[in-house]
Amino acid sequence: MKKVVLAFSGGLDTSFCSVYLQQDLGYEVHAVTVNTGGFNADEVEKLREKAMLLGAKTFTCLDVVKEYYDSCIQYLVFGNVLKNNTYPLSVSAERTIQAKSLAEYALKIGATAIAHGSTGAGNDQVRFDGIFNIVCPQMEIITPIRDLKLSREAEIQYLTEKGFSGDYTKSVYSINQGLWGTSVGGKETLTSHSNLPEEAYPSQLKKRNPEKLTLEFEKGHLIKINDQKFSHPSEAIVKLNEIASEFAIGRDTHVGDTIIGIKGRVGFEAAGAILTLKAHHLLEKHVLSKYQLMIKSQMADWYGTWLHEALFLDPVMRDIEKLMENSQKNVTGKVFVTLLPYRFELNGIESKYDLMTSKFGSYGEMNKSWSGEDVKGFSKIYTNYLSIYHQVNAENND
Amino acid sequence: MKKVVLAFSGGLDTSFCSVYLQQDLGYEVHAVTVNTGGFNADEVEKLREKAMLLGAKTFTCLDVVKEYYDSCIQYLVFGNVLKNNTYPLSVSAERTIQAKSLAEYALKIGATAIAHGSTGAGNDQVRFDGIFNIVCPQMEIITPIRDLKLSREAEIQYLTEKGFSGDYTKSVYSINQGLWGTSVGGKETLTSHSNLPEEAYPSQLKKRNPEKLTLEFEKGHLIKINDQKFSHPSEAIVKLNEIASEFAIGRDTHVGDTIIGIKGRVGFEAAGAILTLKAHHLLEKHVLSKYQLMIKSQMADWYGTWLHEALFLDPVMRDIEKLMENSQKNVTGKVFVTLLPYRFELNGIESKYDLMTSKFGSYGEMNKSWSGEDVKGFSKIYTNYLSIYHQVNAENND
Amino acid sequence: MKKVVLAFSGGLDTSFCSVYLQQDLGYEVHAVTVNTGGFNADEVEKLREKAMLLGAKTFTCLDVVKEYYDSCIQYLVFGNVLKNNTYPLSVSAERTIQAKSLAEYALKIGATAIAHGSTGAGNDQVRFDGIFNIVCPQMEIITPIRDLKLSREAEIQYLTEKGFSGDYTKSVYSINQGLWGTSVGGKETLTSHSNLPEEAYPSQLKKRNPEKLTLEFEKGHLIKINDQKFSHPSEAIVKLNEIASEFAIGRDTHVGDTIIGIKGRVGFEAAGAILTLKAHHLLEKHVLSKYQLMIKSQMADWYGTWLHEALFLDPVMRDIEKLMENSQKNVTGKVFVTLLPYRFELNGIESKYDLMTSKFGSYGEMNKSWSGEDVKGFSKIYTNYLSIYHQVNAENND
Amino acid sequence: MKKVVLAFSGGLDTSFCSVYLQQDLGYEVHAVTVNTGGFNADEVEKLREKAMLLGAKTFTCLDVVKEYYDSCIQYLVFGNVLKNNTYPLSVSAERTIQAKSLAEYALKIGATAIAHGSTGAGNDQVRFDGIFNIVCPQMEIITPIRDLKLSREAEIQYLTEKGFSGDYTKSVYSINQGLWGTSVGGKETLTSHSNLPEEAYPSQLKKRNPEKLTLEFEKGHLIKINDQKFSHPSEAIVKLNEIASEFAIGRDTHVGDTIIGIKGRVGFEAAGAILTLKAHHLLEKHVLSKYQLMIKSQMADWYGTWLHEALFLDPVMRDIEKLMENSQKNVTGKVFVTLLPYRFELNGIESKYDLMTSKFGSYGEMNKSWSGEDVKGFSKIYTNYLSIYHQVNAENND
Repeated sequence: MKKVVLAFSGGLDTSFCSVYLQQDLGYEVHAVTVNTGGFNADEVEKLREKAMLLGAKTFTCLDVVKEYYDSCIQYLVFGNVLKNNTYPLSVSAERTIQAKSLAEYALKIGATAIAHGSTGAGNDQVRFDGIFNIVCPQMEIITPIRDLKLSREAEIQYLTEKGFSGDYTKSVYSINQGLWGTSVGGKETLTSHSNLPEEAYPSQLKKRNPEKLTLEFEKGHLIKINDQKFSHPSEAIVKLNEIASEFAIGRDTHVGDTIIGIKGRVGFEAAGAILTLKAHHLLEKHVLSKYQLMIKSQMADWYGTWLHEALFLDPVMRDIEKLMENSQKNVTGKVFVTLLPYRFELNGIESKYDLMTSKFGSYGEMNKSWSGEDVKGFSKIYTNYLSIYHQVNAENND
Repeated sequence: MKKVVLAFSGGLDTSFCSVYLQQDLGYEVHAVTVNTGGFNADEVEKLREKAMLLGAKTFTCLDVVKEYYDSCIQYLVFGNVLKNNTYPLSVSAERTIQAKSLAEYALKIGATAIAHGSTGAGNDQVRFDGIFNIVCPQMEIITPIRDLKLSREAEIQYLTEKGFSGDYTKSVYSINQGLWGTSVGGKETLTSHSNLPEEAYPSQLKKRNPEKLTLEFEKGHLIKINDQKFSHPSEAIVKLNEIASEFAIGRDTHVGDTIIGIKGRVGFEAAGAILTLKAHHLLEKHVLSKYQLMIKSQMADWYGTWLHEALFLDPVMRDIEKLMENSQKNVTGKVFVTLLPYRFELNGIESKYDLMTSKFGSYGEMNKSWSGEDVKGFSKIYTNYLSIYHQVNAENND
Repeated sequence: MKKVVLAFSGGLDTSFCSVYLQQDLGYEVHAVTVNTGGFNADEVEKLREKAMLLGAKTFTCLDVVKEYYDSCIQYLVFGNVLKNNTYPLSVSAERTIQAKSLAEYALKIGATAIAHGSTGAGNDQVRFDGIFNIVCPQMEIITPIRDLKLSREAEIQYLTEKGFSGDYTKSVYSINQGLWGTSVGGKETLTSHSNLPEEAYPSQLKKRNPEKLTLEFEKGHLIKINDQKFSHPSEAIVKLNEIASEFAIGRDTHVGDTIIGIKGRVGFEAAGAILTLKAHHLLEKHVLSKYQLMIKSQMADWYGTWLHEALFLDPVMRDIEKLMENSQKNVTGKVFVTLLPYRFELNGIESKYDLMTSKFGSYGEMNKSWSGEDVKGFSKIYTNYLSIYHQVNAENND
Repeated sequence: MKKVVLAFSGGLDTSFCSVYLQQDLGYEVHAVTVNTGGFNADEVEKLREKAMLLGAKTFTCLDVVKEYYDSCIQYLVFGNVLKNNTYPLSVSAERTIQAKSLAEYALKIGATAIAHGSTGAGNDQVRFDGIFNIVCPQMEIITPIRDLKLSREAEIQYLTEKGFSGDYTKSVYSINQGLWGTSVGGKETLTSHSNLPEEAYPSQLKKRNPEKLTLEFEKGHLIKINDQKFSHPSEAIVKLNEIASEFAIGRDTHVGDTIIGIKGRVGFEAAGAILTLKAHHLLEKHVLSKYQLMIKSQMADWYGTWLHEALFLDPVMRDIEKLMENSQKNVTGKVFVTLLPYRFELNGIESKYDLMTSKFGSYGEMNKSWSGEDVKGFSKIYTNYLSIYHQVNAENND
């Protein structure tokens, strides 16, 4: 019997797919959930039960949190990547790693097809289709939801007729959770005029008094929070999500261009991601040269764009990763943060690589390393080309 | 008698310069203050009195607020420019326009020298020296503070000996105010570890209850706040500063590279600038193509960098301004904002140029303009080159 | 009867389309050739006869040479655009303008469909499809060659059966000619190993003795060759093609990425384009600031890429055009060239905007505008940040 | 007795410096020549004799050809770097490595000063000053020629008076030779109008009949010419210089901006560099993804600019090197070249990593990997955003 690997989330769409692939298309279904930090053990167990109930031959949860950080998130940190200066690319990064893991799993078990539950209206379909086309180009890609264009009602009716009744009530807000953030969609994000209401966010404000936090980085990785050291940066991010989400930090609405050309909006909360990125960036401002900051920022824009646009497997991404990694040599030190309701403050840093050291002169204070004469000469030579330009042009009466 | 134009701020350094230029160097001193929004009529009058008391031949206040917006600030808005993703470049922009105005004034009155009170340790000296070298290259540049390296005590003693006693107590925090923001320096900003305390900021929190605000843009210019229309965008920014500074919005600490190579930190509050920039950027995300956003962002980085680094008069800046101006054709519409203590929220926008219109499909919803088959074909062709790449490499066992 | 506009070239494919659209699909065929410099009056007359013979209702030749220059080529000149540092984008630019002209014509005559003869394996199909999708999104796009996948033999048989016999011998090399260059494809360009043979090129070497040429530019436009002034730059380019193709100048092989993801090779000769671009670039090196050269080059890379990749109608292209246009203010002067068999030499330039004027100092020669002390100070301050960086790192034993 | 390290070339200026540093400034002179491929053993011996005759305490020739390639030239190859699309940066690269080697040598022997013979009018003084300021910031920098502004006559008179007569006739053209090219300056390059004459170039045309050449690269390095394999790429470049200079290949005139702000011109011949770069680039067009080509080209522009402008020791250069190095993984294969008088042709390539393989479809030919329907869908989705943009704008009557 031919095998299909199905990207399984336990929702209505992939439940429908599971049954449809077996009963209408005659496949042996291998349901797979790729966990990028969104599910705990209990939730995985429920997914397993659901998949088996729906007649899947096997259910597998691929736990890739560390691999997710190592292959992708670390570079988003190194690059201080926020798409459109706002969005940490949580879903973009997740789907990419999930698609890659699914494709590799499908090859491993000798599947002849691979299925996902995306509709025809978003980014995810391109990420799944695209990465499957690259990693397992011979495999058939099956997308029942996109192809059949069924309404929720029709899907429920189909499942009920096949004997799979269940609670398929749609939540008011659709939530996608992972290590690098939680995205939230709802009726407000379908138009341009207003934001999600407070209750749409899974994390609610619990703390009102300011709290101090020390984040410690080593070669660009978050490795310590206050006095707690972590064996892997992904664990530090999990912890930071816990701490900071009680302050309802890291919420915003992303407005951006989808790969298929329409504009889209999505709410998100990403306390751990936002704090990590902003603290990391501050530390970098102290330890990197201005051109390192500039070049890395340009490369990070590309890295984020291509990750977002389903091109993570372009070899140029590996080239950029090497640049980013090398740039982090000195990104070691502490960042001092204050958490407050809905916001935070970066207070300062401490690093042995800090280039803002009074030994070599302080801003606005006289010093010993250079003289006023040196700066006079500098200013003259530095603007020499413009002095010439404007004199040549003055002669031409421009 | 040979004339010198002195950039006059009324502080100890330029008071010293004024007397020194007359009595030690034998110049007729023409004191000039260039007002970029930092002084009201009373304050200008006090500057005039002080200058005349110090023996200046004339005192002139050049009021350039509108010219300042037209020649520079508008492009910072168009470009959403925040240096190092934080700082609106208030001082960089001011010094540039001040230096240019001073140089043109010096040429106009036939001065043979031009003087400024900068020390040898900051960016301002390069901005003054550099722009003078470009606009009036024949004129001598005199910088007594940088050249003589006198302590504040020595300057006070000199002035007292010459009969100019006064209150020269140094304020704990040095403040520089203008249309586009107020910078604040103090002992905290001389090291890397902590921020300025609350009391260092001139604007203190006065309002605690949220307030809604509608900012209206026309071709990229802020022209209306709620129902109040302004005859010039600079007036709208003044008003916005008033409204938003009561919420203590727009504060942060900038860490950056000086032109002379040391790292520096400075606190600032720039409520009007930050709100204008962030609201403008959100509107743009709805009305510009993704490549317009990308290219403009790249150009804006350069624009900000060169403005910061004293190269405003490079002709490339005029080229970039043309690109930016053209990009604003459709940046027309309303942005809805909520002001809160120390922060604000952007709620959404309304624009007839909004590209996120459901007529052409909504994110995540099925639509009529294209089919699932179209996206399948798209995904295949879109990642075709990577599919080839990875197949070629697989054959080579990489 | 419903109308179709057919992009007509007179070759086998579009001859087939013409008959097929009438007889099989029931359309009234309006054959249109868009002349971008590839056809003279005789050739147009022959196209007309052929189209009418094939049963077209009307034949129209849209002569767009000047519009072609004004809307596109001038920016390729301003930007010194050579794709992959080699190819002047002649076909990319032509197809774009042709597609746009066709779509506008189809709208004007009220056609309900628009047809082109592209196969499914190149860039042109995307340029036609894409621009039609933008300019006339409601119109049906018909592509018989791509859809039916007929062999040449089958097309000939079809035409013969329908009574349209003719000479449909395929030439050994397929040639596409226009103002900005002639592309040449053949069996050599289907693999990576060798170039087209001498005889594949339409222009053959006729002159062997060196000839001097003076090219004169005004604000970036070629307006004069030796003593001959032209009323429009496109005429100067036509003339330059005539002169320089006798030296077999401007030949090369382009290797690049197609929009559909495969790599492709194509030979070309573009004497007028290459000479114009290289002379223009040399002049710019003398009259633009280094940052103007840098920024324009970055923008030109994008301009070329997006033109190549069927995105000419992105509004970002209009933004970039404004930047480019402004940069040309001073690009006025003469460039001295020597033509030789298969190559040319740029000897130098003359311009009143030349920034390399000995008045302000010559390379390697002492001068009066600055002193050795100035440069000492410059060097010290200029590398100050790196001196600090390396000292900080030395202390950390890196 | 305090030691000075003198950058010694054997010309009049550094001969003067040698004597002046001893007799007027009281230093023990350690003359050092850093050989980057410009001197053979005989020439080094003559330099040694000259230095000793002039009273130097020691003479040392630091042979750094391999280190020169490894630390710098290889990245210019990987990046296909040609400044202003013309100049291989031969002198820029040489001075950088020479300055670095000198500074390290001076530290090693415990010198207290370091001297170079640059005038105050070129790039080299900034490269020497700057790199000394970074590598040995405590050391005094002595530049007698720049400081004393002596004429050649005065220098000769000084040397004669001190008993060091010799032949100090100035050559008509000043030549600087090294592995990566030979620069030539003369009266023609001081103005903008004409090129150096044929006789100014050290290599004269010797061969007139075309010759075939196969250049073989491994991970971006030139390692084989025809059947000859080299143990280090620098040796392959030396050989290539020999072969190709007989065809007078690789000559041109560079027009560019000096670090000190004036425009400069210089002639050069760099047969080995130009051939290596162009062949390497062609190979890359076949084996790299389009985004790898794009990003590397952007990074290479910066790499070249910063190398040229004395900022080789910025840590960003190390970051970029990592990106470049990683990009060369597949740049392995043969490039077929034909040498002709004054020019060459690249005929094609052969590589197991060639992405232009007919297996996945050929340009302009139908294929099996995708269908016309796929491209239709692609074109539609690909230009969807522009279709929306133009429809929204049409509604607004733009």
